[in-house]
Amino acid sequence: MVQGVHFRAGQLSPQEIGHRALAGALSDLAAMGAEAGEAYLALALPAGTGVDEAEAMVRGAAELAASLGVALLGGDVTRAPTLALCFTVVGWASDAGELVGRDGARPGDRVGVTGELGGAGAGLALLDGAVPGDLVQRLGSQTRAALHARYATPRPRLGAGRTLAAAGARAMIDLSDGLAADAEHLAQRSGVRIELSLDALPVAAGVSEVAAALSLDPRRMAATAGEDYELCVCLPAPQAAEADLLQQPVEAIETLSWVGSVVEGPPGVVFTDADGELSGYEHSF
Amino acid sequence: MVQGVHFRAGQLSPQEIGHRALAGALSDLAAMGAEAGEAYLALALPAGTGVDEAEAMVRGAAELAASLGVALLGGDVTRAPTLALCFTVVGWASDAGELVGRDGARPGDRVGVTGELGGAGAGLALLDGAVPGDLVQRLGSQTRAALHARYATPRPRLGAGRTLAAAGARAMIDLSDGLAADAEHLAQRSGVRIELSLDALPVAAGVSEVAAALSLDPRRMAATAGEDYELCVCLPAPQAAEADLLQQPVEAIETLSWVGSVVEGPPGVVFTDADGELSGYEHSF
Repeated sequence: MVQGVHFRAGQLSPQEIGHRALAGALSDLAAMGAEAGEAYLALALPAGTGVDEAEAMVRGAAELAASLGVALLGGDVTRAPTLALCFTVVGWASDAGELVGRDGARPGDRVGVTGELGGAGAGLALLDGAVPGDLVQRLGSQTRAALHARYATPRPRLGAGRTLAAAGARAMIDLSDGLAADAEHLAQRSGVRIELSLDALPVAAGVSEVAAALSLDPRRMAATAGEDYELCVCLPAPQAAEADLLQQPVEAIETLSWVGSVVEGPPGVVFTDADGELSGYEHSF
Repeated sequence: MVQGVHFRAGQLSPQEIGHRALAGALSDLAAMGAEAGEAYLALALPAGTGVDEAEAMVRGAAELAASLGVALLGGDVTRAPTLALCFTVVGWASDAGELVGRDGARPGDRVGVTGELGGAGAGLALLDGAVPGDLVQRLGSQTRAALHARYATPRPRLGAGRTLAAAGARAMIDLSDGLAADAEHLAQRSGVRIELSLDALPVAAGVSEVAAALSLDPRRMAATAGEDYELCVCLPAPQAAEADLLQQPVEAIETLSWVGSVVEGPPGVVFTDADGELSGYEHSF
């Protein structure tokens, strides 16, 4: 995670920077249904970085690691022109066959997403100052804090990933680039068409207000804004129904929303709403 | 390994950059006597980097990995303002007690170094254009190529590290900063005084000529130039004698030179020669 590429100077505290970089790495393990094991950090610091600042980055990561049972085992510190954090994380499964890839989606599968979408994108819009001040005030401090947290301190869905893998997930990906772009990865790798219902997307609280301020359809924001680090999963219909994941008291998945299905057709993602098929839902936000 | 910090643009081929970055990471495993297992690469590329160039970096690392039985298992690619390669390597031992740290040196130990010293520093001096052209020519193409290789494509001493660990090494470090600086780490961590004989240092072929061109004592170059990635080891005297490492047909250690001893005294490194104790042998080259 590189300053100026994955986050901007001054928008995040050092502790948030450390947390977010580790969360992004662990999110890839979540998407495989792996048990997270060890993490290693290579920290590249520009001249003039204070010891306090560097320690706060490590602390942010260490606290997330501890809360997830991940062992932050070591790493390295080096000088560099730009601040960058490189986390390497190792995940485990008792059998390689338990791990979920991106290429197993098949026509007939149902497509689900965990949690809520668009929150991180809205949080970033607030940090960017893209939302007029009076609208920011009207959001209320709790919503503002929640949107900021969705961007600044995402939590990798490790428990949800393992639960969905055990439930028979055939393909899974974490939403770092946004649902439109990440579902496209699943579609291309699996060689299938994925139809997603824009009206079914679980839009995070506050996203509608921020989207309105930006003259955007909130559903578009939920579909294309990245960095929510939720999971998008393809499950065979029988397992999806049987598992009844929404009703199970699985702490790991607070919610799972069914947002579409896998169909025959040329590989790719199509968004629909009550008016039919929509175009232009590439990663545009 | 960051461009502009650990290597300079234009001095190394992409393949050498990949090789060297992995070698530097594996060298730390060698210094612990660990069996090298897996390697992961996070590659940060500035805009405009060609695919050929990026692939050549990976190829350089992959070829070194294959030659050492190391599994280059994956990684990530990202955009960044500066070229950087972050290798995370995982080493193994059947028992944690087999691994060698930096804090076990005790008075009475003998101090040895593998291979030859100063070659990488001389190779870098050639790349820097610090040596006059006529002297460069006089070195001969074979010596020039050998010095370049010592800098550009070092080989981590994994076999030597395991052999020395099995022989009873009490403390070990790889020579990335140079013998003077790295032995100082051993001295400080172990709380001992290390006396090194400048005349006993194994000076690599060609170093004398390059040092002369730079008006340097070649022994100083061997003592203070870094990036040779040889090992410095402290062995109890009986084991050092018994093991008779120099005579054993251990392919892993081509040579092991005894260069000093661990003594009582305030923690630190002292260099001596026929004239007695020398001063100013900090990492200065």
